[in-house]
Amino acid sequence: MKIGIVGAGSIGLLFAAYMNGLFDVTVYTRTIGQAERINRNGVRLVKGAGPLTANVRAKALGTGPMDNDLTIIAVKQYQLESVLSHLPAKGALLFLQNGMGHLRLLEQLNVEAIYVGSVEHGALRETPDTVSHNGAGLTRVAVFRGSPDLLEKVASLLSDTFPMKLEPDFYEMLAGKLAANAVINPLTAILGVRNGELVENPRYEKLLEKVFEEAAAILGFKDPQDRLANVKRICRNTSENRSSMLKDLDAGRPTEVDAILGYLLDEADDREMAAPLLRAFYEMIKGKDSNGRESC
Amino acid sequence: MKIGIVGAGSIGLLFAAYMNGLFDVTVYTRTIGQAERINRNGVRLVKGAGPLTANVRAKALGTGPMDNDLTIIAVKQYQLESVLSHLPAKGALLFLQNGMGHLRLLEQLNVEAIYVGSVEHGALRETPDTVSHNGAGLTRVAVFRGSPDLLEKVASLLSDTFPMKLEPDFYEMLAGKLAANAVINPLTAILGVRNGELVENPRYEKLLEKVFEEAAAILGFKDPQDRLANVKRICRNTSENRSSMLKDLDAGRPTEVDAILGYLLDEADDREMAAPLLRAFYEMIKGKDSNGRESC
Repeated sequence: MKIGIVGAGSIGLLFAAYMNGLFDVTVYTRTIGQAERINRNGVRLVKGAGPLTANVRAKALGTGPMDNDLTIIAVKQYQLESVLSHLPAKGALLFLQNGMGHLRLLEQLNVEAIYVGSVEHGALRETPDTVSHNGAGLTRVAVFRGSPDLLEKVASLLSDTFPMKLEPDFYEMLAGKLAANAVINPLTAILGVRNGELVENPRYEKLLEKVFEEAAAILGFKDPQDRLANVKRICRNTSENRSSMLKDLDAGRPTEVDAILGYLLDEADDREMAAPLLRAFYEMIKGKDSNGRESC
Repeated sequence: MKIGIVGAGSIGLLFAAYMNGLFDVTVYTRTIGQAERINRNGVRLVKGAGPLTANVRAKALGTGPMDNDLTIIAVKQYQLESVLSHLPAKGALLFLQNGMGHLRLLEQLNVEAIYVGSVEHGALRETPDTVSHNGAGLTRVAVFRGSPDLLEKVASLLSDTFPMKLEPDFYEMLAGKLAANAVINPLTAILGVRNGELVENPRYEKLLEKVFEEAAAILGFKDPQDRLANVKRICRNTSENRSSMLKDLDAGRPTEVDAILGYLLDEADDREMAAPLLRAFYEMIKGKDSNGRESC
């Protein structure tokens, strides 16, 4: 089975390294330089016992036709619009973006099968061809449109080494992840703390609950207490991790705040809900985003 | 005229240096060591052209009777309760604490004349006997109880070198300062920025307005737009300054958050007002307070 992976960041490289061998994998990079480097060196996976090298084929995106059974789109949400025109009109697509803002873009696509996924692995791209797998987790996937057949086949082939779990309802799945992201990312980024700190420090935990409350109201959760417990569990399970938003701010990279808080605030506006805390954190992250890091 | 100054932090030393010569000044320190050092070296005032030395008399607080015409209490709000029992029962008292939480303590005192003040100078204690006067401003003072006569006399003697301005209404004076502190201190401390950044960065300015709105509602301002303009003016006038709360957090010292946000939230609770942003910033500052600085 031919698998295309669009985007060679941490998630794209992680999927390439684990799926290569079981599938015929091509990675589509943004630059020709990175494609050449991966074709020369393979993708190095740093994990536990020692690095493994996967001999993955790579092409720069847009330099030729894409002909895959499944194409996995592993770019950030804010990069999605720029890659959409390069995606194939045939085969199935799997989108791994955070948030839910990308769903309205997917509705406009003409492909028969569209899947969405939510990645629960910790991964860090160390060089253009090296990815470190820091936290083993799983990938939750669900059907957005069409038949689940291909997705089920891929999931069964991956089995234990890189588990992919089929979820019955894409909205529930993405909304759950979004709520966790909307709470953990902005709070850790503004407070400058690792994930675990949000539940270890009683003051931060109280704040986490208040912020979660606003997100849960907007997303219309039927079981907010279970969802809140899940967010706290994620904080404990990834206790030593620094969130992606904290790392992005520290590195002066753009954050995913629009995909996460921006989406929730748009939804809140549509329904005339207040959400003062989400709005405050949005402004704080955007303020830091626009400034780069402060010197004092 | 005999002036006592309780507390030899930045504000206490600043007042001692400027009032010495015009008045017979005694500084009351917390430790015997600091009193000995000041008696030996005087108080060094670093400002503009070069340092000046004021030969100020110093005593450790509680080591003897206090017999002054005016005693100025220049300790932080959270240190106030521990010095109250040492204050003289005669003469006038001038309290320079931030916030308004100390007013209920003042009501219990038996002294005839009580004044309150609000210091608009920038000062930094560099060593136990050296203070740097970074930002020349003024001290606003008002009568809390009794006759203004002594206060007027002191103000006229200080005149231009260290101006003291009499305000007609202590509540208006302290509420105005409190609103500015409630906005500028927590925001700069959590965002890690200097004061000017709050009005230079449009995202932060929007946030400042939202936080101010909550404080203004609690304090019952009749002219919120003028007050907001004043807060922004303070940000611009002290543009390069790092707020006291930011400095306290950075140095791992306790902050004045209880005197500032804690007071406002108590008032909000009494009147069943929500104040979600003030509450969130309170939890964030308290969380950082309790942790010392984060390492990541």
